[in-house]
Amino acid sequence: MHPLFLLSLLLLSCSASALQDDYCVANLKGANTPSGYQCKDPSTVTVDDFVFSGLGVEGNTSNLIKAAVTPAFVAQFPGTNGLGISAARLDLAPGGVVPLHTHPAASELLIVVQGSICAGFITSGSNKVYYKTLKKGDTMLFPQGLLHFQINAGGTNAVALVSFSSPNPGLQITAFALFANSLPSPTVEKVTFLDDYEVKKLKGVLGGTN
Amino acid sequence: MHPLFLLSLLLLSCSASALQDDYCVANLKGANTPSGYQCKDPSTVTVDDFVFSGLGVEGNTSNLIKAAVTPAFVAQFPGTNGLGISAARLDLAPGGVVPLHTHPAASELLIVVQGSICAGFITSGSNKVYYKTLKKGDTMLFPQGLLHFQINAGGTNAVALVSFSSPNPGLQITAFALFANSLPSPTVEKVTFLDDYEVKKLKGVLGGTN
Amino acid sequence: MHPLFLLSLLLLSCSASALQDDYCVANLKGANTPSGYQCKDPSTVTVDDFVFSGLGVEGNTSNLIKAAVTPAFVAQFPGTNGLGISAARLDLAPGGVVPLHTHPAASELLIVVQGSICAGFITSGSNKVYYKTLKKGDTMLFPQGLLHFQINAGGTNAVALVSFSSPNPGLQITAFALFANSLPSPTVEKVTFLDDYEVKKLKGVLGGTN
Amino acid sequence: MHPLFLLSLLLLSCSASALQDDYCVANLKGANTPSGYQCKDPSTVTVDDFVFSGLGVEGNTSNLIKAAVTPAFVAQFPGTNGLGISAARLDLAPGGVVPLHTHPAASELLIVVQGSICAGFITSGSNKVYYKTLKKGDTMLFPQGLLHFQINAGGTNAVALVSFSSPNPGLQITAFALFANSLPSPTVEKVTFLDDYEVKKLKGVLGGTN
Amino acid sequence: MHPLFLLSLLLLSCSASALQDDYCVANLKGANTPSGYQCKDPSTVTVDDFVFSGLGVEGNTSNLIKAAVTPAFVAQFPGTNGLGISAARLDLAPGGVVPLHTHPAASELLIVVQGSICAGFITSGSNKVYYKTLKKGDTMLFPQGLLHFQINAGGTNAVALVSFSSPNPGLQITAFALFANSLPSPTVEKVTFLDDYEVKKLKGVLGGTN
Amino acid sequence: MHPLFLLSLLLLSCSASALQDDYCVANLKGANTPSGYQCKDPSTVTVDDFVFSGLGVEGNTSNLIKAAVTPAFVAQFPGTNGLGISAARLDLAPGGVVPLHTHPAASELLIVVQGSICAGFITSGSNKVYYKTLKKGDTMLFPQGLLHFQINAGGTNAVALVSFSSPNPGLQITAFALFANSLPSPTVEKVTFLDDYEVKKLKGVLGGTN
Repeated sequence: MHPLFLLSLLLLSCSASALQDDYCVANLKGANTPSGYQCKDPSTVTVDDFVFSGLGVEGNTSNLIKAAVTPAFVAQFPGTNGLGISAARLDLAPGGVVPLHTHPAASELLIVVQGSICAGFITSGSNKVYYKTLKKGDTMLFPQGLLHFQINAGGTNAVALVSFSSPNPGLQITAFALFANSLPSPTVEKVTFLDDYEVKKLKGVLGGTN
Repeated sequence: MHPLFLLSLLLLSCSASALQDDYCVANLKGANTPSGYQCKDPSTVTVDDFVFSGLGVEGNTSNLIKAAVTPAFVAQFPGTNGLGISAARLDLAPGGVVPLHTHPAASELLIVVQGSICAGFITSGSNKVYYKTLKKGDTMLFPQGLLHFQINAGGTNAVALVSFSSPNPGLQITAFALFANSLPSPTVEKVTFLDDYEVKKLKGVLGGTN
Repeated sequence: MHPLFLLSLLLLSCSASALQDDYCVANLKGANTPSGYQCKDPSTVTVDDFVFSGLGVEGNTSNLIKAAVTPAFVAQFPGTNGLGISAARLDLAPGGVVPLHTHPAASELLIVVQGSICAGFITSGSNKVYYKTLKKGDTMLFPQGLLHFQINAGGTNAVALVSFSSPNPGLQITAFALFANSLPSPTVEKVTFLDDYEVKKLKGVLGGTN
Repeated sequence: MHPLFLLSLLLLSCSASALQDDYCVANLKGANTPSGYQCKDPSTVTVDDFVFSGLGVEGNTSNLIKAAVTPAFVAQFPGTNGLGISAARLDLAPGGVVPLHTHPAASELLIVVQGSICAGFITSGSNKVYYKTLKKGDTMLFPQGLLHFQINAGGTNAVALVSFSSPNPGLQITAFALFANSLPSPTVEKVTFLDDYEVKKLKGVLGGTN
Repeated sequence: MHPLFLLSLLLLSCSASALQDDYCVANLKGANTPSGYQCKDPSTVTVDDFVFSGLGVEGNTSNLIKAAVTPAFVAQFPGTNGLGISAARLDLAPGGVVPLHTHPAASELLIVVQGSICAGFITSGSNKVYYKTLKKGDTMLFPQGLLHFQINAGGTNAVALVSFSSPNPGLQITAFALFANSLPSPTVEKVTFLDDYEVKKLKGVLGGTN
Repeated sequence: MHPLFLLSLLLLSCSASALQDDYCVANLKGANTPSGYQCKDPSTVTVDDFVFSGLGVEGNTSNLIKAAVTPAFVAQFPGTNGLGISAARLDLAPGGVVPLHTHPAASELLIVVQGSICAGFITSGSNKVYYKTLKKGDTMLFPQGLLHFQINAGGTNAVALVSFSSPNPGLQITAFALFANSLPSPTVEKVTFLDDYEVKKLKGVLGGTN
């Protein structure tokens, strides 16, 4: 046997233990922890654990906001577990809007790949709005946890690819958090300054109760 | 000279370099970085850099929400810099409300020290509300980045002490972010589903423009 | 069906996967990991997982140090798991003392809510002591891992609420570490410079062996 | 003056200190630190600090590898500082190749937006190769620090947008590290097992010395 | 019973929950997570979980590179789990070489304890080589993820002790990654600029296929 | 000009910005921050910034504890800045002792390279002692922030190399913290349970005041 090949075997045995820590594909049926899901058995991992095809499919924008978000977070794309990154696709038909929302656990980077999008975020403290109309190829950042939005700014379908600084950024859409919940309307009104009429109307529309 | 004393000098010189890294009191006039402010010169640090007296003072609740938040974040309490923790005092007169808000960069732990407070948070995704009326001594957690609120639940002044998992948790009050900004009203309406009347009324009240 | 409601369903399904990562309530009977305990099944989580009532109860100070520490760490308050924060209550009867100790894994922020407390910490390297008598409302910081103490500085009961930059800060009381262990007395003497008489006396009192 | 407006002023003053920590746009002429560059003065920040237009421009692939990488790392896009994310554009003419390389400080997520790309990475320890031909819309992950490559797999120009889990992922192209350096050829040969002829040839081509 | 002893019991019960979080010895048969392995049951932990004797044994350098690496990573030394550190021993017979490699997940600190070693690393971007001949007692740093090598620089056996900033640094030896894999030779050639002859020769020697 | 060389220039310009982030050698005269010192200008960095020779020099053990600690922390070895690792050398003459101490900011890994050392640490909560006599080649771990000690266990000089999971682990020697400070003796007695005689004697020996 060739000595280099022997070396190969030697060093492989040394480092074999490191193998499964190059990555930690999520076992979504296993335990979740503060650092992410437990790892899938490395011997069952294939290239398809690192490949996701869902972002190539146009989202269905036949809804009131004429928009769709297709996530590739850890639940859809288990390979992202522990890697500090994930992605999503954003489709905006003409007139489409992604309502004001936050990602509690990640910063976002958006790249326009088709059409034109007006996007912005609101700072805490000073309530300053940073917003701009982005054209194809423009990239915009939304710092972690801040309210932000995207609106189709042209007459044609717009598409953006977004990535996040976490495999599970979370998504809290303000209107849904306010009106699609079970919090009594008087409480909602107290904590938002909104009118009773407005709160009850939107609770009705968005499926809130109480 | 006594040999132990010599040892003392010896080992002190060894470890002297570690001294200033036990802590990093913020030099608020110096550079800020992603990990916090640059450190104040350790030779000028005194015990008062680690002590803050502002939380003993009742906040002024003579305002519409009958509430006051007194922060001890890094800007008010530079000793917190780099220590992963900060605090605030919450005063709620009868009828007082801390409106719906988020801390983009920290989880919060609240302890009621006087009176009774109804507090809650809303999850992302499912818009589930976890809320409860807390009495003196009760502690409640608000996970990072999620919308939450506090309401005086009794007929007397309520006081809570809150701490945060960051020296600079940030504070984004939803109503202010929505209505105290310069974003044109039609845009606000589009991204919140709110009526034009409501948006313009609250923009007027809260000092928003456009 | 109303189109906004449809949207609601649509987006909920998109983000449902993010739900359980807003928080990770500890399953204390499950696996522990370097980042904390595995998460409790989110479908069984209730508001009571985020509320702890133990800090409202006065600790029993009928002991030699006339002091009591009531923790709300992850073992007592599983909701803190993964949130980077926890708390405790400190009761000091007149003459009460919390002996010199460290928290190996967290910085501490203490707020005096009743009485008066003399508190201090000792830096590494220079052995400088930062200490001060704190009155009601005063807040003091103790940087991670440094020796610190609290002493009732008045004639009445004193109470402090403390928070930590970790769900499990640890607590190593120096006198107990030195004398309530099974390390042979000659070894203790060698590594502390203390007399044989002193070591054996305190081993006896604190329950040490050998 | 309206009481809510007063409140607005009150709370703004409370939280004003948090303002500049929502983000930390890099001051590239200021100090760099282990956590990133010092922050630009927040009063000079504009929306353009969060927008980058370079990824919309096709890279020049008139070179031997028929490929171009256009980075939007912190040096090109200072707004990414401290946000845990950055991006790049990849252009591959027919026959184009991004040679084997690593990012020492980040995981990578690649989305094909035009054409077809064969991409893969090599694990440590077992030297297993995970590779696949990706079509438009496919996303692939490359775990931190592992060797990986991309090759145009079709007859037309291919474009990919890539994002990274760090504002400054680094880029170490193996062939350049091996042959475009000043390390003496015998040393290169010893540490790579390559022939003297091969090393000297590629040193010549790639501009290495010694 | 003595009151101090009672105190001892009291405080122990308070802090008992912190016990198992002082450390998290890996249960290698349990779940792995992005933060490391699940912890071994603390009640079964002994001092031997924190002691490893393998680094005292000379590695077998009877191979072509005349070198051996003996790791004390988490797989060999489970006590390192969660502690942010691990180690290895490096033996280099005369003429011995540790070929160019990276640790994807850690920085390295090497101390020469016998003989003389020429060591170096190559920066990303500028391909600058920092290298030096180290004598007994010299320490050298290799920043995370960068290509580096070690060569016996004397006529006698050389030994180095190395430590890493992670319990599982990983080890990717460039020559093995390139030639001991199953990637088709034409692909290897394309992504490395190497000749077909060279690639096939080294694939043969190192056990690569295709 | 050769096209590959052109490519070389092209890609170098792309990645030049990443250069200085491969490492961040401390500028000890510049600002310190919570993440470490600001970086030295990369254009002035040489290989000697990554090499430290002090650990090859025997420490002076002509003192009462017959021991010496030679640190290679960030203050002595600025190249460790931001790399998450540092080192030290430990010399123990026969009878030598490194007294009980903690590193507030790091875990420690010790390798015996000469002689025999009895080393141990004490857990928090249960005050359990894990200790063992280590021979040449044995490695032992000391988890972050816990009290630990080392004692020469043989009749000859012993030497250990230790590494830490931080560039600046800190070093708090308990006896010095207790007795080499300016805290009034009655206070020391109260927080340690030690006798007045013992405290005053050791204050005298170790240079404490008050």
